[in-house]
Amino acid sequence: MEYQKELKRLIFDLKTNYLPSVSIDLVIFGFHDGQLKVLLLRWKTTDKWCLPGGRIRHEENMEAAAYRSLRERTGLSEIFLQQFHTFGDVDRYTHFSRHDTLSKLGLPEEDLKEFASRDVSVGYYALVEFAGATPTPDLFTDECCWWDIDQIPLLLFDHNDMITLALKTLRRQLSYQPIGYNLLPDKFTMPDLQQLYETILGQSLDRRNFQKRMLGYGILERLEERKTGGAHKAPYLYRFNKENYEKALRDEILFVG
Amino acid sequence: MEYQKELKRLIFDLKTNYLPSVSIDLVIFGFHDGQLKVLLLRWKTTDKWCLPGGRIRHEENMEAAAYRSLRERTGLSEIFLQQFHTFGDVDRYTHFSRHDTLSKLGLPEEDLKEFASRDVSVGYYALVEFAGATPTPDLFTDECCWWDIDQIPLLLFDHNDMITLALKTLRRQLSYQPIGYNLLPDKFTMPDLQQLYETILGQSLDRRNFQKRMLGYGILERLEERKTGGAHKAPYLYRFNKENYEKALRDEILFVG
Repeated sequence: MEYQKELKRLIFDLKTNYLPSVSIDLVIFGFHDGQLKVLLLRWKTTDKWCLPGGRIRHEENMEAAAYRSLRERTGLSEIFLQQFHTFGDVDRYTHFSRHDTLSKLGLPEEDLKEFASRDVSVGYYALVEFAGATPTPDLFTDECCWWDIDQIPLLLFDHNDMITLALKTLRRQLSYQPIGYNLLPDKFTMPDLQQLYETILGQSLDRRNFQKRMLGYGILERLEERKTGGAHKAPYLYRFNKENYEKALRDEILFVG
Repeated sequence: MEYQKELKRLIFDLKTNYLPSVSIDLVIFGFHDGQLKVLLLRWKTTDKWCLPGGRIRHEENMEAAAYRSLRERTGLSEIFLQQFHTFGDVDRYTHFSRHDTLSKLGLPEEDLKEFASRDVSVGYYALVEFAGATPTPDLFTDECCWWDIDQIPLLLFDHNDMITLALKTLRRQLSYQPIGYNLLPDKFTMPDLQQLYETILGQSLDRRNFQKRMLGYGILERLEERKTGGAHKAPYLYRFNKENYEKALRDEILFVG
């Protein structure tokens, strides 16, 4: 009963204070210790999973709405969110009926009709250190947790396509922007950095070429200390040169013949 | 009077048959003979310019809506359109009042209010051989023509930002996808291809590195013929290997260490 009352309030709020026809979906990639995961929500009273999402308030910038949703689902706020694609097909709901899915919430038929109408959805992705997040379900869902990237089930709506395209964009981003800040500890080794790239790309890289390319960007500082504790010759520690890193993010490393 | 009647019909159509809160804007780059241009429209009874745009019908895929608008403004249909960013700030109308701009159309105040509300706009860009296009204004505009990329005036709404970001995305695309098909003649020389890249990047490239890189992609076939008519040693002619070109478009040329 409490839930039904809350749901009624939420629906009234959504109808009144949010833009119609546009929604937001978030592909939140989690990285930790050589594993890549995605944050998913289990739809109320079903065994179906979907991406976290949100809507835009009338007086709110779209990006702020995306950050608000990210914060609500993970507790994280200082995270780099990247818009990657807007999904605008009429038929974004091939696998499951949107109407049937929504009816599991126990919505009255009149609200259902309005809700089951078509949205254009703007996709954002983020890459977070997943040990630091606190997954939190919303009023439409019963559970929120991390799934291994290679074990994602058939999701509601067009959310499998969204993950595929987000991962493609993230991989592409590696060819023109640095990555790793906020994901690696302050001091890290070249193998740590290489593992991050290999995890995202899903393939192994040549050690020497990788090192040469990374050092060529001028975004790394080699420290005097070496990593201790390993059985082999201790590898050098590096850290990002924040100023050059930010410059590389802005300038992008472009093909220049 | 005829115009006012047509406008009334259009407004009724927009209110009834199109998604609220979402619009489309098109950055159409034209390439011809070493020049890069952008297609702009002059707003009714003003000297202010803006990008061509459109809206999405209830039963229409967003991409189809973008192609429809492209066709209406240029007469071109078989053109590669690329979605590049969705613009969702509340304040997308910094330079000019949206209300004042719309009032130049002679809209009744009640229609104006609805029209002057906020849209999230999905940006697409295209790159066309501009000699083949037929620029055509719409009901909101008096003129449609090509502007040199380095002479774009202060545009209505956030359209200058849109052009800047579209160009950045197009340049970025050169680092992971081939370009040139549909823009160069069937047979072309390496200097022709280099000029296309230099025009888009806005900078000169090293001739030898460019040739080496281009040949490395395996998308070019060198023909037996050479170009005739020049004073210098005749350069080889090339054409795209369509199959490899399409494969390179799909696979993308990624950073792999």
